[in-house]
Amino acid sequence: MINSVGREIPDTIAGFKSMIPFRGAFEKGGSSPDFPSKKTRLLQGNRKVLTSMREALEKVGVESGMTVSFHHHFRNGDYVLNSVMNEISKMGVRNTKIASSSIFPCHEPLVTLIQKGVVTAIDTDYMTGPVAQAVSRGLLEAPVTLRTHGGRARAIDDGDLHIDVAFIAAPTADVQGNINGVDGPSKCGSLGYAVPDASHADKVVAVTDNLVNYPLTYVSIDQTHIDYVVKLDKIGDSTGIISGTTAITRSPIALKIAEYTAKVIEASGLLQNGFSFQTGAGGTSLATASFVRQIMKERKVTGSFGLGGITGFFVEMLEEGLFKALLDVQCLDLKAVDSLKKDLNHIEIGSSMYANPRTKGNAVDMLDVVVLGATEIDAEFNVNVTTGSHGDIMGGSGGHGDAAEGSKLCIVVAPLIRSRLPTVVERPVTISTPGEIIDVFVTERGIAVNPGREDIKQRLVDAKLPVVEMEKLRDTAKRICGKPTPIRFKDRILAVQEYRDGTVIDVIREVE
Amino acid sequence: MINSVGREIPDTIAGFKSMIPFRGAFEKGGSSPDFPSKKTRLLQGNRKVLTSMREALEKVGVESGMTVSFHHHFRNGDYVLNSVMNEISKMGVRNTKIASSSIFPCHEPLVTLIQKGVVTAIDTDYMTGPVAQAVSRGLLEAPVTLRTHGGRARAIDDGDLHIDVAFIAAPTADVQGNINGVDGPSKCGSLGYAVPDASHADKVVAVTDNLVNYPLTYVSIDQTHIDYVVKLDKIGDSTGIISGTTAITRSPIALKIAEYTAKVIEASGLLQNGFSFQTGAGGTSLATASFVRQIMKERKVTGSFGLGGITGFFVEMLEEGLFKALLDVQCLDLKAVDSLKKDLNHIEIGSSMYANPRTKGNAVDMLDVVVLGATEIDAEFNVNVTTGSHGDIMGGSGGHGDAAEGSKLCIVVAPLIRSRLPTVVERPVTISTPGEIIDVFVTERGIAVNPGREDIKQRLVDAKLPVVEMEKLRDTAKRICGKPTPIRFKDRILAVQEYRDGTVIDVIREVE
Repeated sequence: MINSVGREIPDTIAGFKSMIPFRGAFEKGGSSPDFPSKKTRLLQGNRKVLTSMREALEKVGVESGMTVSFHHHFRNGDYVLNSVMNEISKMGVRNTKIASSSIFPCHEPLVTLIQKGVVTAIDTDYMTGPVAQAVSRGLLEAPVTLRTHGGRARAIDDGDLHIDVAFIAAPTADVQGNINGVDGPSKCGSLGYAVPDASHADKVVAVTDNLVNYPLTYVSIDQTHIDYVVKLDKIGDSTGIISGTTAITRSPIALKIAEYTAKVIEASGLLQNGFSFQTGAGGTSLATASFVRQIMKERKVTGSFGLGGITGFFVEMLEEGLFKALLDVQCLDLKAVDSLKKDLNHIEIGSSMYANPRTKGNAVDMLDVVVLGATEIDAEFNVNVTTGSHGDIMGGSGGHGDAAEGSKLCIVVAPLIRSRLPTVVERPVTISTPGEIIDVFVTERGIAVNPGREDIKQRLVDAKLPVVEMEKLRDTAKRICGKPTPIRFKDRILAVQEYRDGTVIDVIREVE
Repeated sequence: MINSVGREIPDTIAGFKSMIPFRGAFEKGGSSPDFPSKKTRLLQGNRKVLTSMREALEKVGVESGMTVSFHHHFRNGDYVLNSVMNEISKMGVRNTKIASSSIFPCHEPLVTLIQKGVVTAIDTDYMTGPVAQAVSRGLLEAPVTLRTHGGRARAIDDGDLHIDVAFIAAPTADVQGNINGVDGPSKCGSLGYAVPDASHADKVVAVTDNLVNYPLTYVSIDQTHIDYVVKLDKIGDSTGIISGTTAITRSPIALKIAEYTAKVIEASGLLQNGFSFQTGAGGTSLATASFVRQIMKERKVTGSFGLGGITGFFVEMLEEGLFKALLDVQCLDLKAVDSLKKDLNHIEIGSSMYANPRTKGNAVDMLDVVVLGATEIDAEFNVNVTTGSHGDIMGGSGGHGDAAEGSKLCIVVAPLIRSRLPTVVERPVTISTPGEIIDVFVTERGIAVNPGREDIKQRLVDAKLPVVEMEKLRDTAKRICGKPTPIRFKDRILAVQEYRDGTVIDVIREVE
């Protein structure tokens, strides 16, 4: 064969699987079955920046039956999911699966789209608000898949959840699709949950309201993953990222729980140099963190890292030198966003790095202590964070099962009774996280230790903490609240709660 | 089915591909064919840090016939390739393919390993020194595959080049395998060329001489990609990264070429705000950059980015505000390394982001001007950077073809005659880069413009630059040097020069 620069190329050479002659620099081998690539090259001169969402949807070839994905870094302040789905609906596309890392009250317009048949399937880690209520009423024919955050990353990385088109709300994007979440009028911080989508979706559209010149220098997800960039007027409301109360609780019960929890951590022996910690953004969590911070200062403990959804409280601990680093998969307030941008020890991680159980190593597996919540918990420490006591979907695992399994010490905290309903129950409506990976349950009425952790129990007894049996907590709750009326379920399954490895830990049935 | 937390799970649900019941948190679904994963999970308690190279080789299961990969960021100061291959040889492993992004004189011990049958194949982008000489003498039975840097990233990303085990020289690593090149006694800067290997090799071993606590905060390649970390006494000599002369040339011929080149760039119309530029580290390149810098200052031009192998010279231009950013796939001196660590506008990129032609967008495709070298060039502007005029392998494309194709203006510079041998020839020994993507050839005797770029030619004529025909340069060279004795080749093919898309642009035959 003579190739296009006039050189004689043998048809075959031993040991080479193919000898495709050069055909010219712009006659790409892209169509050759010898070099398969899922990626479509964007040749110089082509433009990624499109002028409308409609144009983007047409360019990526959105059609009925596709799976489209979204991330939830704007939480209840997200505008992108509704904006995209509204346009998809207008195009006459039907039978769409929404794979969003979480669904919030702001996504109420999805209810209408489900009614219209535009959306017929949902795959998410957490859902609350009108969509969750509509699903609980049986509006969606197909059962929802509920995953953990790490399980979602696993499912996408492994091809178990295939995404046709990912839409990434990008607070700042350059013209080639390098994006970040720390700059711009709608900054939301880490884009960690969008990383698996960007890496594996067939097509990826960055949606921004802050388009800048090339090259962006703080890059969360780089241009090699982005097909198109679309500019909207506004992609989200930054204040929507704020989770929980953002202030330390003043409730005496919650303060008692927080104090016990900090003492459990102190007694566990883990609170020493190199200590790593994850907790939430609610009032009790912040109070716990506040007590832990005080103990760390008193005992001159320097921790290694704070993990997870990051709050300004953790930022202060980083700045005080109580942590060497923050590993940030999601910012839970604007102080965290600003720290992520300017502090080199505050680093952004993707959700696989955070918690995918099938990588070569994730961050939750390096975690000493996590403090998590529970809607219900049983005597075997099985936790429900998916459904309310009346059986409706009002949450989901999020990172619950991930951090519980990965950490050396997983503490679940909750008041014994909430709104006259017991937290410790005979049988949780749903099991979201298996009891075998919950070590300690802290309530204002005492601290129960998983029988599998005799070592911890002994330490708490030695520290004179009020250790009680789970059965006793359950019976106390029952005595106060009375025997709950059992919920009656229909056969119909509304959702499947997956464990992080993809196995099914429970199903959620329709309430009669 | 009843799962391990006692919940009744239906065998099938419409629309779900599988319903594997939860079997316990540590009974992973990893072996399930339903959730295929190439990655082996490292459960908490397992350790990544191994005490010897032998242990690492055994853990990853190195055996005869495997492909093992290396990166070349230490250039001629690398200790890792020899260290690994020496141990592989001692284990009795044979028939290994070395996939190293480049091979330097320091890798001379490979010659003995080829003689012993330990190494029987080589896949690289550039080779010089004793290994290249031995290959040129026919020592290796199988032909070497020569790629461009972007072509190597493409081949790995697309599975065209499968790597069994990647060994990554990591100047700093934490105990979970987060690594960087900017810290530690053997810092080398960007680890860009190792990124595809880390992403796609079945097993990845980080080799470090600076093991630090978790978590590392400047992370070039994260722990999700690293199976093991091995500590050696010394992984490389940082001074080996220095490429070229690092000083501006004093040769009058080279200065003349540099001056012409800068004037070509000025005349091209591309030297305006947003200008982006790549050049090498040799004396002529630095002289060119120096002239360009002066023009930028005089004309108050603010460029967008400097690309490629980065030198301290480009760092100074960044610091002076002449570039907004540096995109760094490789540091060519220690000033660049230190800047990469501390300057947030100096950013590290992987080789796919640099130049993989099959991503959704790479950096060379955003490049305005690149200045490249040539060993030989013909009247059609086809360039040889692979073989010397006597036919021996003494280089390779590296990023030559990538930057040439991606850039808006590709200028090749060379003296008309080197060591009494003409640069402009009738027929280059090898065609590494096709003439169709070379726009201008600058020599001390004048400037030739590719007939495909009449627009540029007109601009240079208007700027009163000494534009000449390529044929005239060729004839001048021939007149001075005399007619060269043609090299006679055997049929045997020693190496295959791939173009960046995987097609074969030339083959290198054995010299008689």
